[in-house]
Amino acid sequence: MSRHRSHPRWPRVAERRASATLLGIMSPQENLTEAIATEGIGKEIFALAAKIYPICRSITGDGVRETLREIGVHIPLEVHEVPTGTAVFDWTIPREWNIRDAYIKNARHEKIIDFAQSNLHVMSYSVPVQKRVSLVELKSHIHTLPEQPDLIPYRTSYYLENWGFCMAHRQLESLRDETYDVVIDSTLKDGSLTYGEYLHQGETEDEFLLSSHVCHPSLANDNCSGVALLTHLAKRMAGLKTRYSYRFLFAPGTIGAIAWLARNEHKVRRIKHGLVIAMVGDGGGPTYKKSRRETAKIDRAVINVLRHSGLAPIVLDFFPYGYDERQYCSPGFNLPVGLFQRSKFGEIPQYHTSADNLEFIRPDHLAKSYHLIAATIDVVENDRRYRNTMPKCEPQLGRRGLYDAIGGDKDAAAKNLAMLWILNMSDGTHSLLDIAERASLPFAVVRRAAQLLHAHGLLINDIADENA
Amino acid sequence: MSRHRSHPRWPRVAERRASATLLGIMSPQENLTEAIATEGIGKEIFALAAKIYPICRSITGDGVRETLREIGVHIPLEVHEVPTGTAVFDWTIPREWNIRDAYIKNARHEKIIDFAQSNLHVMSYSVPVQKRVSLVELKSHIHTLPEQPDLIPYRTSYYLENWGFCMAHRQLESLRDETYDVVIDSTLKDGSLTYGEYLHQGETEDEFLLSSHVCHPSLANDNCSGVALLTHLAKRMAGLKTRYSYRFLFAPGTIGAIAWLARNEHKVRRIKHGLVIAMVGDGGGPTYKKSRRETAKIDRAVINVLRHSGLAPIVLDFFPYGYDERQYCSPGFNLPVGLFQRSKFGEIPQYHTSADNLEFIRPDHLAKSYHLIAATIDVVENDRRYRNTMPKCEPQLGRRGLYDAIGGDKDAAAKNLAMLWILNMSDGTHSLLDIAERASLPFAVVRRAAQLLHAHGLLINDIADENA
Amino acid sequence: MSRHRSHPRWPRVAERRASATLLGIMSPQENLTEAIATEGIGKEIFALAAKIYPICRSITGDGVRETLREIGVHIPLEVHEVPTGTAVFDWTIPREWNIRDAYIKNARHEKIIDFAQSNLHVMSYSVPVQKRVSLVELKSHIHTLPEQPDLIPYRTSYYLENWGFCMAHRQLESLRDETYDVVIDSTLKDGSLTYGEYLHQGETEDEFLLSSHVCHPSLANDNCSGVALLTHLAKRMAGLKTRYSYRFLFAPGTIGAIAWLARNEHKVRRIKHGLVIAMVGDGGGPTYKKSRRETAKIDRAVINVLRHSGLAPIVLDFFPYGYDERQYCSPGFNLPVGLFQRSKFGEIPQYHTSADNLEFIRPDHLAKSYHLIAATIDVVENDRRYRNTMPKCEPQLGRRGLYDAIGGDKDAAAKNLAMLWILNMSDGTHSLLDIAERASLPFAVVRRAAQLLHAHGLLINDIADENA
Repeated sequence: MSRHRSHPRWPRVAERRASATLLGIMSPQENLTEAIATEGIGKEIFALAAKIYPICRSITGDGVRETLREIGVHIPLEVHEVPTGTAVFDWTIPREWNIRDAYIKNARHEKIIDFAQSNLHVMSYSVPVQKRVSLVELKSHIHTLPEQPDLIPYRTSYYLENWGFCMAHRQLESLRDETYDVVIDSTLKDGSLTYGEYLHQGETEDEFLLSSHVCHPSLANDNCSGVALLTHLAKRMAGLKTRYSYRFLFAPGTIGAIAWLARNEHKVRRIKHGLVIAMVGDGGGPTYKKSRRETAKIDRAVINVLRHSGLAPIVLDFFPYGYDERQYCSPGFNLPVGLFQRSKFGEIPQYHTSADNLEFIRPDHLAKSYHLIAATIDVVENDRRYRNTMPKCEPQLGRRGLYDAIGGDKDAAAKNLAMLWILNMSDGTHSLLDIAERASLPFAVVRRAAQLLHAHGLLINDIADENA
Repeated sequence: MSRHRSHPRWPRVAERRASATLLGIMSPQENLTEAIATEGIGKEIFALAAKIYPICRSITGDGVRETLREIGVHIPLEVHEVPTGTAVFDWTIPREWNIRDAYIKNARHEKIIDFAQSNLHVMSYSVPVQKRVSLVELKSHIHTLPEQPDLIPYRTSYYLENWGFCMAHRQLESLRDETYDVVIDSTLKDGSLTYGEYLHQGETEDEFLLSSHVCHPSLANDNCSGVALLTHLAKRMAGLKTRYSYRFLFAPGTIGAIAWLARNEHKVRRIKHGLVIAMVGDGGGPTYKKSRRETAKIDRAVINVLRHSGLAPIVLDFFPYGYDERQYCSPGFNLPVGLFQRSKFGEIPQYHTSADNLEFIRPDHLAKSYHLIAATIDVVENDRRYRNTMPKCEPQLGRRGLYDAIGGDKDAAAKNLAMLWILNMSDGTHSLLDIAERASLPFAVVRRAAQLLHAHGLLINDIADENA
Repeated sequence: MSRHRSHPRWPRVAERRASATLLGIMSPQENLTEAIATEGIGKEIFALAAKIYPICRSITGDGVRETLREIGVHIPLEVHEVPTGTAVFDWTIPREWNIRDAYIKNARHEKIIDFAQSNLHVMSYSVPVQKRVSLVELKSHIHTLPEQPDLIPYRTSYYLENWGFCMAHRQLESLRDETYDVVIDSTLKDGSLTYGEYLHQGETEDEFLLSSHVCHPSLANDNCSGVALLTHLAKRMAGLKTRYSYRFLFAPGTIGAIAWLARNEHKVRRIKHGLVIAMVGDGGGPTYKKSRRETAKIDRAVINVLRHSGLAPIVLDFFPYGYDERQYCSPGFNLPVGLFQRSKFGEIPQYHTSADNLEFIRPDHLAKSYHLIAATIDVVENDRRYRNTMPKCEPQLGRRGLYDAIGGDKDAAAKNLAMLWILNMSDGTHSLLDIAERASLPFAVVRRAAQLLHAHGLLINDIADENA
């Protein structure tokens, strides 16, 4: 096989950045990934997660409001209150639950369980109680994990009035047969459900939805991690020009997402891409669960990013169980919204236990999750169709100094091949993402090669794509 | 992940049966599987197979008539005679063959082969013969199985006039060099080909064809098993209301099926589903060979049933060799007819030998085969499209007591998931079978979950489906 | 399973050949494979490869002309000259390069490198040089293979003016620190690029392109093998009637193919099938790289042939790197042209080294490659759609003596099955290649069975196919 090898002239990152406006060929969002992926992001996300970790959240109540206030320190969050009793599709906003204190004292007046030590000790939505009970009666209100005897489980009873405590199984087994004073100083009365949203306005009304649940109490990964990551992502995007508008939604799981959909039913068709972000601080996965459409651009974008992440991604077909993608992907909406996580939910022993604490999540994992999401946004922002201006035979890349990149540039071969793939497939029917998929290359490599070819006049924007 | 867990209220089988008409949501055939799958079915099928096992059948003659009479004891069979010489497409009904006796005597007048002991000893359609022959000449008419030296093979010569005996290879090797008297007291003369059919009339003229060949002599699995199974299936269906009409056909292989198709050419388009049933008494497989259409509903129904049978099914793409599906699936008809067997034909050592006897088939295998076919019928009868009446977000299943089934009900998780899948996919384009396939669930689980959702008003019949 | 087994009457090869015109059902090209696949072909191809091996070829110059003259000894080749400076799409025909002699002498006037010994010693397109240089300067012009220290590499510098020598790394390491006289007696001046083509005229203007690069110097497999194979294939086809016209192209890689496409742009749409043939004398593969269309008939034809070759074929999806299929498959042409090789290029240690010599290629490998290409041509020539004249039920093959072939004919079972597949699938929508693919049978078996069925009136030509 004979072909010309000349001195390479692949522009370095700095060059490319500087030349972007000069060349006039790169959209403002070209360097989005780099712009939003700064150093230290993992620590910043961790710090916010740690800040909101102690708050006792539920699907309603002051814990959610306090969490939204912390988010609001970083971004101009719009907070909404939906009154108790409001009908939202098949559901009704429940009464608001708040809790001040709770404990169990034994016959010697020793506090053996104290809400102040861990808000997991009280089953969420427990009605108020203050009574002396026998061990037998107490046990009927205690939840434990016999197979993880040192951990406190997380339990809720949103729609069935009840009260309960959660404790380590080992502690349960040590309880003496005596009387106990149980106190739950909670309120369950008319109020409202609270959620927050923030819109980063892009060049178009088309939206990219990023949604995290904010209803779990002191569980670090589930979902202080997701809430903190989205907050800092929104913060970094401020001031950046983007093609899409980005809607960040912080709402209680299920009922919160349903309330938001019910109140925004008329405009959800604007959502062209979306991700539910949950449990992104552990080192597992990454896991991606496809949208119900299964081949939406968001699905293909995440999959391309994960396949080239150097990690061992898990890609799941859609199934109607999980987080709020259940609502976004219900058949009446069928929005292109997937789920991004690290470990697959329910498949780690820390899931929904007191072991999901701040030691379980790490800045480097948070940073990695952040970068993967940023890279996904980059795909969606920059995917487009070009047309090869020299479609008959290959253009002479060597003459233009495009063939072969700087020796030692480890991506050189991939970039060369990317140029050949782009030229071969840019016939008006394939976008850069199509090409990246066909060539098994990272989208970012294909995008940069396309920009280079475009700068040399070998590609033009496809007219049809302008209107797409 | 937060969701409501309430007390479950999954109806028990007995409840469901009782409530079927009260709720008015279940079609009469809803409990078809249970209605026709009674205890003891295996023994009943075995008893009939044993009854017809000794009869010497061929593609024509009194053996077929006697077999049809035995079937007629159980169901009102309609028997047809097609005269010798009748043209049926490219074929002609051959002369009728009957046999009274046959033997070989050695020089000492000892009967070394006796038709009365096994009808496999005579090659089917052997012309009459009565002569004294040398060992050399005799050997030119003897068929054996050198690799299975103790077994008698099954041989035929329908369209080439000839005579022959079949024996164990070990016996052939022991024959002395002497003269032998051979007698075959058979007749081959104008008569007719006989087949029987029975129609279970359903609510529509659309038919489900169930076809078994009745031309083999004393071979228990091939196909006394299939004939007996279909007879008892027809018997159990008597009186049941069904959507489809069920046509049971008992005909000689190849020429019988061709004759039936030639005489019913004008109405075969009524056949919407079909199965050829053969060799269903051994413990192999189960094996399913797809119809030529490959994705017909019958193909998908059987595959769903087999995949969830707990056995290790073998699913084969269509190929133009085998049983009477060759004729039903010829390109001029292209009927949606597959083949159901246990072991794949030709792949068991007993195939077409004297080892295919009553010890080779077992009541429990026959019962299992019967249940698999009954479950397939259940799929075809009950597959339909519903529409989710609450397509925007999930309906609140907990409020209706639908979420979570009785603890200890081992199918609870599958049923819950089935409900979510049905709600998510019932958008007018997916039938219950589509949903079962997508969710990797048994059709029966999906069907019962759909009935429950329908009873709670969460599903309505899809109008388009009514006309499908 | 009962079916008639009669005496077989599968015609032997000799019979079939004789009867071809008598029956009037076989196209003249029916026995193409046999006609062109004679004994001794491997030795003839090898002899020509050996003849052209010593010639110093490049992308222009007398070496190409001499090679085309050797081809012209066997077939009436049309030779074209394209002047330096001619624009061919994005490229320009370069100046013509010729070389008479080259050497390196050490300080003791000993020739340590001599072009006369191996033309690989000089980097192709080296500009003239005659100077005394230090070891340091010399080394900056020497190319070696440190990991294969005994081999001389093959290097070119077509579009960047430079000079260089190639040698064994072991020799480089032994060079003393002294002065060296380097002489390259080459010319680089206006002239022309040379290519040859030959058209075997068929019954239609539709063409099958067979293309080999002729620009490499003394590399036996790459591509004396391909050039010699195509020459003898063209020679054997002379006088044969074919459906397609066959265009044999012998052109320098890349620039030669681009020049040919530029000069024949108006008629390339005639090309219905095509193969680039390169490196066909080693025992690897066979390797097939699909055309850009991926499911073109040429792709399916080669794959059918390779799958039934008894070898371990490698089938690659198209990628935009390789030989001249890069140009044929550029998006502005998108011709159905694949690449046939034995070992995959670049994956053998001899690739582009002095070890790619006449000992590396063998007559038996060349013959095998030839037969595979001939069989591919046979598929393309003979693929057609028939209609079963008896589509309702199977026709009675036994009555026509078609069932079962001569005992001992090892292909008998495949032929029987082929007949059943053809009858079942010949409904006007499937061609013989479709059937061969579906039945997992060699096309040749299906084709012969179809001819037999056609001769017995069981198949007719499909009218739609006549116009296809």
